[in-house]
Amino acid sequence: MTRVAIQGATGYTALELMRILLRHPEVEITAITSRSERGHVTSVHPSLAQRLDLSFESLTAEQLGERSDVCFCCLPHVASMESVPQLLAAGMKVIDLSADYRLSDPGVYEQWYGHVHTDPTRLGSTVYGLPELFGDRIPGEELIANPGCYTSTSILALAPLLSAGLIEPTGIIIDAKSGVSGAGRSPKVNLLYAECNESIHAYGVGTHRHQPEIEQVLSDASGQTVDVIFTPHLVPMDRGILATVYAKPTSVASEGDLLTAMQEFYADKPFVRVVEHLPRTKDVAYTNYCDITVRMSKDRAIVIAVLDNMIKGAAGVAVQNFNLICRYDETTALL
Amino acid sequence: MTRVAIQGATGYTALELMRILLRHPEVEITAITSRSERGHVTSVHPSLAQRLDLSFESLTAEQLGERSDVCFCCLPHVASMESVPQLLAAGMKVIDLSADYRLSDPGVYEQWYGHVHTDPTRLGSTVYGLPELFGDRIPGEELIANPGCYTSTSILALAPLLSAGLIEPTGIIIDAKSGVSGAGRSPKVNLLYAECNESIHAYGVGTHRHQPEIEQVLSDASGQTVDVIFTPHLVPMDRGILATVYAKPTSVASEGDLLTAMQEFYADKPFVRVVEHLPRTKDVAYTNYCDITVRMSKDRAIVIAVLDNMIKGAAGVAVQNFNLICRYDETTALL
Amino acid sequence: MTRVAIQGATGYTALELMRILLRHPEVEITAITSRSERGHVTSVHPSLAQRLDLSFESLTAEQLGERSDVCFCCLPHVASMESVPQLLAAGMKVIDLSADYRLSDPGVYEQWYGHVHTDPTRLGSTVYGLPELFGDRIPGEELIANPGCYTSTSILALAPLLSAGLIEPTGIIIDAKSGVSGAGRSPKVNLLYAECNESIHAYGVGTHRHQPEIEQVLSDASGQTVDVIFTPHLVPMDRGILATVYAKPTSVASEGDLLTAMQEFYADKPFVRVVEHLPRTKDVAYTNYCDITVRMSKDRAIVIAVLDNMIKGAAGVAVQNFNLICRYDETTALL
Amino acid sequence: MTRVAIQGATGYTALELMRILLRHPEVEITAITSRSERGHVTSVHPSLAQRLDLSFESLTAEQLGERSDVCFCCLPHVASMESVPQLLAAGMKVIDLSADYRLSDPGVYEQWYGHVHTDPTRLGSTVYGLPELFGDRIPGEELIANPGCYTSTSILALAPLLSAGLIEPTGIIIDAKSGVSGAGRSPKVNLLYAECNESIHAYGVGTHRHQPEIEQVLSDASGQTVDVIFTPHLVPMDRGILATVYAKPTSVASEGDLLTAMQEFYADKPFVRVVEHLPRTKDVAYTNYCDITVRMSKDRAIVIAVLDNMIKGAAGVAVQNFNLICRYDETTALL
Repeated sequence: MTRVAIQGATGYTALELMRILLRHPEVEITAITSRSERGHVTSVHPSLAQRLDLSFESLTAEQLGERSDVCFCCLPHVASMESVPQLLAAGMKVIDLSADYRLSDPGVYEQWYGHVHTDPTRLGSTVYGLPELFGDRIPGEELIANPGCYTSTSILALAPLLSAGLIEPTGIIIDAKSGVSGAGRSPKVNLLYAECNESIHAYGVGTHRHQPEIEQVLSDASGQTVDVIFTPHLVPMDRGILATVYAKPTSVASEGDLLTAMQEFYADKPFVRVVEHLPRTKDVAYTNYCDITVRMSKDRAIVIAVLDNMIKGAAGVAVQNFNLICRYDETTALL
Repeated sequence: MTRVAIQGATGYTALELMRILLRHPEVEITAITSRSERGHVTSVHPSLAQRLDLSFESLTAEQLGERSDVCFCCLPHVASMESVPQLLAAGMKVIDLSADYRLSDPGVYEQWYGHVHTDPTRLGSTVYGLPELFGDRIPGEELIANPGCYTSTSILALAPLLSAGLIEPTGIIIDAKSGVSGAGRSPKVNLLYAECNESIHAYGVGTHRHQPEIEQVLSDASGQTVDVIFTPHLVPMDRGILATVYAKPTSVASEGDLLTAMQEFYADKPFVRVVEHLPRTKDVAYTNYCDITVRMSKDRAIVIAVLDNMIKGAAGVAVQNFNLICRYDETTALL
Repeated sequence: MTRVAIQGATGYTALELMRILLRHPEVEITAITSRSERGHVTSVHPSLAQRLDLSFESLTAEQLGERSDVCFCCLPHVASMESVPQLLAAGMKVIDLSADYRLSDPGVYEQWYGHVHTDPTRLGSTVYGLPELFGDRIPGEELIANPGCYTSTSILALAPLLSAGLIEPTGIIIDAKSGVSGAGRSPKVNLLYAECNESIHAYGVGTHRHQPEIEQVLSDASGQTVDVIFTPHLVPMDRGILATVYAKPTSVASEGDLLTAMQEFYADKPFVRVVEHLPRTKDVAYTNYCDITVRMSKDRAIVIAVLDNMIKGAAGVAVQNFNLICRYDETTALL
Repeated sequence: MTRVAIQGATGYTALELMRILLRHPEVEITAITSRSERGHVTSVHPSLAQRLDLSFESLTAEQLGERSDVCFCCLPHVASMESVPQLLAAGMKVIDLSADYRLSDPGVYEQWYGHVHTDPTRLGSTVYGLPELFGDRIPGEELIANPGCYTSTSILALAPLLSAGLIEPTGIIIDAKSGVSGAGRSPKVNLLYAECNESIHAYGVGTHRHQPEIEQVLSDASGQTVDVIFTPHLVPMDRGILATVYAKPTSVASEGDLLTAMQEFYADKPFVRVVEHLPRTKDVAYTNYCDITVRMSKDRAIVIAVLDNMIKGAAGVAVQNFNLICRYDETTALL
């Protein structure tokens, strides 16, 4: 049995995390923290009635460390890099769901997030928690940087073909579409129902922070400099990300060749399903699966990947990482 | 040509009003005000690009009066009753879309809105702007209290049968369902897309401020004390209200009798359509129509009414009132 | 380990059933049938890729009986009463998700479904599978009539207050709102996205087949003749039912009294949560919970209940019944 | 006054057309036809109650010609090319909303639509009804090929930069997203609410029939061979298309240069608005506007265009064409 704490537990990702962990036979949730809320967990998350009998608390890292073995840190960026060193010092293993430990270069972090990184020495060494690529490095780690939702979708779409040298590493276009839950639970006019419903729009064109994250991880994974154009869109649905990725094959390759390369790459990965049909976000909703396929159109390979941004894109992969660092079966609580 | 100003023009109702007025051949919009915004109207309402070349201003009633003949007041309640006397003093006719002049009794106002009414003498004398009931009193008025959206739906459903003495005035149940735009453009967590989508819930059970408004107007219109239970629900859609109303017939009456009474009541009303099928909010979306029908089930009459809360429930009826006070054809810009 | 077959496995309820059963540690799905489909289960349900490796088959009851111990019958009504006797004769236990065995009187069945019941002797004796009311009669049964979705919501809302004699058994109004998945997977114009989205409407007013089912079960459960008016509405969302129920207290009772009666009634029931807030369908989405509360408004008790029509309203309660007849823990695979 | 008939009037485009034409001061709708329906128009389109008092009829071209001056042909492709020559022979002007007269090469038509074109001589000579490009050729024409919805969005996005030689004509990627109404009113499982809602997916990758239409028109308009990859997606909303278009600038060009070229191109076009913000489909919903902007990201120009697929993408542009051929003001009934 592993005692688990969740820091910053009022958001959607934390809620999803609690739902999954409540199904985990080896987990006891022992503490949930919030900077603003003090009531019972059900005051914010009524869906947890009779499921979890905890109240939000304000706890120091030391107090958290006394009560728990692993901490899922769901704080926003900046707040996270202030907390994580303390959590580690208090003896916990940490899965950080913010962006603070994903980039390996403090300069790149500062450029995209507008803050000096206060824990730069850990940047290069922290494992990026995408188990399909770095699964063998995760077991036993103290700190895992849980990936972004757009990032996971894009990387899972591109890694096999890049690693096999089947597509050019530059000029890649990622046109991504996400449900609204990915934007979080902050009261902003542009996230109101009456603004988002019956509408689609692009945002952050050329400026979204997941772009450097995608480039870094794909470059690392494939041993070459990968360069992408990333365009996110907001779609009127709760959950789901679909990435439509356009890349140039390095030489003549059939759709079948590309599909085979993808199938081989993910042969022993339980949560990526290479399919022949065009996948829908609905097919993976409320699951930890990422469904992927590829088409050839004229001289382009078009890779299409879907996942549930709250699960495989956030809370699910966090539990997958948890299972790996704690050496539980990778799929526990996730099927 | 009538010069028109809109006070409090950043919200959804004001946007809808501008869209309709831009189609009105006898209207020129001359001023839009806001307490917080100063930019071009398109900075808040991009859909008005190349349609309206005005910026939000902070204007006194006098300044508004110099530029315009009629003012649509879209301020929130309390703010409205501070502004309306000044607008009238500045020589404008006023259509007030807030709740401040709808109730005739200052004590009832204070009880439900928690504020002392500062313009109580106008309460009893202001005409309630539901043209299907009070259309003959509206032409030439200086001030019109534009009705609430739930209120219009409920009153239009009940007035014919109550006026004809065909249903009991007490024990009436109004189960109403509304799209989210009715809640306005304020950044509140409970109005976020990710909260409202894929969900329905009741709210304000027994405490919604439209309940006394419905009772007052139906009592006035039918000459008896009408008593209703009103339960609103929030439905995942932009627009539309559906009211399902349960009432007891006063004597044996067939569905046909009730339908005939409704048809007669609305025979010369251009915007209420008595239909035989069960109407959908979609049938009246983006129109100024209210569609109504009735069914008998066991010993109950079930009246069902639908309208677009932003149009017939707010901006459309406001223009209908405007047409009447200015003696334009009632349907101008509304078909 | 129990071997399970699903008859009529192409619909939404069957899909949900498979998803739940795949999490059940004591279940092996051994056969899925269809009258029209012959492909792999993923050809119809792509979300089951790598989860279930079965193809749709056309199998006799005997063949099903050789492969399985329990059959979930997901056929439409009429087809179901033709199949169920054969399934029982082949030695299986059967959970029937159609309406064919829910009503106890063949005459009432014929009146509402327009077909003579061909297996009338089983009608009176088949247990109605609502475990919160009839849980002690279910263990060991051969055949269970799984309840309708509107029915479960309505009955769970009303049973405690009726059983305690706190509300009048007549004049009850049930205003119910459902997501679209409840209408099934048939290609009908009125179920198209472009028809249902951004719209709400009532249907089957006074004629919906769940009305006699609600009356029968509530009469049985409370020992008095219960009479309801039931009005269903279609709401633009995938899942969820909300019932708003209006009833007259038999004597002066506070909201607290009614709430207490409900809490006592469901004290040891794992899947009904009596809450103090107004529940949303979102709070119970993708769970087997039914959340209930009550309000007093003037002289009426207003009970509000929500559940996920696909789970607690269909597939989840079917597995709950399965657990009971097979004497597994009632909550297995359902938390 | 122009007498207008609508052939094939049961679909969504025809409904939208009727709504717009009912606002047109110079139009009388004199006939609506259907191959299957015979009832009053409100039996299929309840939103037209008290708006249009016509019933669906089966009429020959001659009969239509006796009653009307202009026919909007809303038949499906193939049916349309059978009807159009007869309509023309009966003396009417025709606006054909099908794909039958859009492609100029009968061979290309046969390749993409799988039918031999039976009216090939008209293919080359029929004007493609995109008024922003071919507006000077439309007045006085007998037959107009009304453009596809994806096509209009894509062409309006690309024409200015291609015509100005600012982007390469090859390697263009069009990633398009559409609401569900574009798929029509046919009862198909994949168009059910429960299939489309809460989901996004790509379809017709590399095989969608709007791809050759886009290429042909852009090649014609810019005098060079244009080659695009077109990927459509289905988005859970009623209306709206957003196209995100990726192209390579021919030389160093700033965002401002590209924006200026677009503004100049559309300077005198009333229905294309070149904007600086990222447009949302909601901004143009229920209007005949197309909103467009451009961004530079690394070495790519990203053009984003939105329109309402039912209006600017179908019925609205049809009325715009109607206004032009009848020499009414281009914007009549469309603002």
